[in-house]
Amino acid sequence: MALKVIPIEKAFMFFEPGPVLLVTTKAGGKNNVMTLSWHMVIDFTPRLAVTTGPWNYSFANLLAQKECVLCVPALDLAETVVRIGSVSGMKVDKFKEFGLTEKKAKTVKAPLIKECLFCLECKLVEYIEEHSIIILEGTKAWYNTEKKEKRTFHANGDGTFVVDGNILNYRSIMEDKIPPGV
Amino acid sequence: MALKVIPIEKAFMFFEPGPVLLVTTKAGGKNNVMTLSWHMVIDFTPRLAVTTGPWNYSFANLLAQKECVLCVPALDLAETVVRIGSVSGMKVDKFKEFGLTEKKAKTVKAPLIKECLFCLECKLVEYIEEHSIIILEGTKAWYNTEKKEKRTFHANGDGTFVVDGNILNYRSIMEDKIPPGV
Repeated sequence: MALKVIPIEKAFMFFEPGPVLLVTTKAGGKNNVMTLSWHMVIDFTPRLAVTTGPWNYSFANLLAQKECVLCVPALDLAETVVRIGSVSGMKVDKFKEFGLTEKKAKTVKAPLIKECLFCLECKLVEYIEEHSIIILEGTKAWYNTEKKEKRTFHANGDGTFVVDGNILNYRSIMEDKIPPGV
Repeated sequence: MALKVIPIEKAFMFFEPGPVLLVTTKAGGKNNVMTLSWHMVIDFTPRLAVTTGPWNYSFANLLAQKECVLCVPALDLAETVVRIGSVSGMKVDKFKEFGLTEKKAKTVKAPLIKECLFCLECKLVEYIEEHSIIILEGTKAWYNTEKKEKRTFHANGDGTFVVDGNILNYRSIMEDKIPPGV
């Protein structure tokens, strides 16, 4: 299998740049997946905050099940990810509809997505209802060692997306700010 | 002046892709600026959530003053932004040290930064102490109409950064998800 467990302390690195995510949930024996852009790292362990709005079907599943998988798709999945974001899981089995392959996670019931670059199993820590913010804690990190396309993409909010370009290396300037194991 | 007011409903678009930000605060008559990667949009008005951790000097100023400016630097400021993130405003006047130009904001005391691509004046709505998350509401949006370099950059968390590359346009697929005015 392409997805391999990697050290959990590297997981925040996949979210800090702000890529578009796929989030899987499981409810009533059925897997669902949604597209999500509104997320941030809140600590290195890692903990993350996410929000979409309570109108969302997957969001309701996540609140009920208290677990999910945050997956980082690469550029090859871009159109699929946008299409996933445009239909509700209430009506459609999105895994079948969009040709995604479910893989069994270790610490949660929601599935990994084999076609993604990275997946993080997460437990819900808290729901801050006033702002519809969910706090998640990462429990198991999976990296797709066989994937050639490593560029992710970021939503601009107007239907356009920006793809990862060049890399800058400023490690020498900020060495004492980089957490252990990274 | 290069920075011009633009409609507030477009402001979330500068944050949704997850670029590295500069955040200005004012305390005791002195302006300060910090680098911040951990932020997310939480609604289109816009509201945003940010966190850094209570050890940070600017974070303490932001909590005390209950206002700030979130600025989006472009690629030309990348090394400056990394250097700003590596020193504390407690010891250094970072505007002077790093050659940034303060411009007067309209709704907050903290300054705009003339060299940035975009600045959003913000009021603090709430501090969620348990998770060190600050909820901000944007009050005035400024876009730098004279800036040629529009590419932003995103932190990977290990001292490397990814620069904006190609643009994908999926507006036709997701037309009914795009908020009014965008």
